[in-house]
Amino acid sequence: MDIDKIDRGIAEGATRAISSAITAVEDGDPQAFELLKRVFTRSGNSHVVGITGPPGAGKSTLTDQLIEHARKQGKRVGVIAVDPTSPFSGGAILGDRVRMSKHFTDPGVFIRSMATRGTLGGVSHGTYDAVTILEAAGFDLVIIETVGVGQDEIDIVNTAHTSVVVLVPGMGDEVQAIKAGILEIGDVFVVNKAERTGVNRLLTELQMMLDLAPEEAWSDGWRPPLLKTTASEGKGIEEVFEALDGHIEFLRSSDLGRLKEVARCRHRIRNLWKEQAMDRLLPRILSEEELQQAAERMALREDEPYTLIEELTRRLNGLG
Amino acid sequence: MDIDKIDRGIAEGATRAISSAITAVEDGDPQAFELLKRVFTRSGNSHVVGITGPPGAGKSTLTDQLIEHARKQGKRVGVIAVDPTSPFSGGAILGDRVRMSKHFTDPGVFIRSMATRGTLGGVSHGTYDAVTILEAAGFDLVIIETVGVGQDEIDIVNTAHTSVVVLVPGMGDEVQAIKAGILEIGDVFVVNKAERTGVNRLLTELQMMLDLAPEEAWSDGWRPPLLKTTASEGKGIEEVFEALDGHIEFLRSSDLGRLKEVARCRHRIRNLWKEQAMDRLLPRILSEEELQQAAERMALREDEPYTLIEELTRRLNGLG
Repeated sequence: MDIDKIDRGIAEGATRAISSAITAVEDGDPQAFELLKRVFTRSGNSHVVGITGPPGAGKSTLTDQLIEHARKQGKRVGVIAVDPTSPFSGGAILGDRVRMSKHFTDPGVFIRSMATRGTLGGVSHGTYDAVTILEAAGFDLVIIETVGVGQDEIDIVNTAHTSVVVLVPGMGDEVQAIKAGILEIGDVFVVNKAERTGVNRLLTELQMMLDLAPEEAWSDGWRPPLLKTTASEGKGIEEVFEALDGHIEFLRSSDLGRLKEVARCRHRIRNLWKEQAMDRLLPRILSEEELQQAAERMALREDEPYTLIEELTRRLNGLG
Repeated sequence: MDIDKIDRGIAEGATRAISSAITAVEDGDPQAFELLKRVFTRSGNSHVVGITGPPGAGKSTLTDQLIEHARKQGKRVGVIAVDPTSPFSGGAILGDRVRMSKHFTDPGVFIRSMATRGTLGGVSHGTYDAVTILEAAGFDLVIIETVGVGQDEIDIVNTAHTSVVVLVPGMGDEVQAIKAGILEIGDVFVVNKAERTGVNRLLTELQMMLDLAPEEAWSDGWRPPLLKTTASEGKGIEEVFEALDGHIEFLRSSDLGRLKEVARCRHRIRNLWKEQAMDRLLPRILSEEELQQAAERMALREDEPYTLIEELTRRLNGLG
């Protein structure tokens, strides 16, 4: 990888350079680290929007419509679609192939699927780095779309400036709980598939949940709008777009935007440190053979892991 | 916390001691670490079953029925219900209160909700430790039930001996992708709400996906059974139970059970190290003030975080 060339390519918004850079991030290439050092200070000028919601809510269709709308305004759009990882292939399950294919030939649109990690403890830190690369490449709008509604997905969406939560009518009782969790992270709520029966009941329920939210939820002065779309027909998209613009305006006009960015940066420093501790430090103080032997004793319950963990901390002191 | 007393209480299967121990784990109490050192080697004799699937699939109802069935056989059952975390309260959203309340007065059943972490990078390592405590308390069956279908949930369920994937008819196209991800982790598949329309189509689809799975998926010799239940009426539960028994028998009769346990232990060591690196090491090399200042410069894009991360590694060498 020619860092100078990729760096220039990103600055020019060249698809190929952006793509190579994200691949380097995914592969854990040490050069990606050097590249990120260079591009990071050029990031920070995009509007980063996270889209989450339960399976079947129509998040991809909504994303597709948002891309189209942004393009009409001459905005460049980058999309990171976070997919569940296949334990067999190691890659993302959905892949770019089935996603938003009609924008593939548009140089003002960049779409990339990224896999979540298959290992324990794994929000994909690559997602944050990929967003940095897209920001440095000058995309006006960067969309992070997730599949699923677990904690990882909420974490990922929390890295955005604006979180959009998409819900649909008729998803059963258990969804109530998910809704409660999701409600607390949303800056904009969208009820999609507005042609379905039960849409008014869902809207009423959501409005009640928003009204009943604890006061501190709105202490920052932003009350999340609740919107209705039929994304497959493009209905209601303009209103969603206006809400997104309204939210970023709100953040930029108050000190809140800066405070939230500082909080995100704190998270990112801590997260980078965690990955570093795992990928670079651990192999230096615990050999593969030792790890395997410890795991084998542990599997037989002849030994416990906690004393070893304390020992590892002591070993760090001996590092030269 | 009186470690000796709690330790004895766990050995006796006393609800109060188990509960205190799990709370200590959740709170990150250093004494929990000492307690886990003691109880770990007494764990490992339970059958740990993970239950996952999309929202609305009826996982809680199924869990409820499995508890009932196990109790009829005189087995003691511990349940960890992993809930999404509320960013406001910091606690689990569902909570014990709405769950499986009819087993509350049964001393042979222990049910506990645990929150996933609200911070970035957070599979709840507490889940693994809580399972260890339940195992040491001598529960024959330990069930981990998740809400949601994200990567974290898959990771959590992967810590079980047997993973049960629950699906229902009529969840839309996007669910196909989730199904593909979930199919690869299941040891037993359950199509619940068998009275719904579309159940036969779903069963056929799933059977096809299982038949088309790559050869290496079955290289261990276990072909996941596909079962039909109406959990709300108790229909098909016995078959699920038999499948669970069949799977743990299979694991115990081959070397596979041991190999999988070693793999889980490797994960756990790495995961514990990660938490340690974060919670104990980081504060020693990066002060709160420094972290905040770095984040503020980073938020303004006056600085990038990657050089700081390298610097932190160097600082570790100076630790005494």
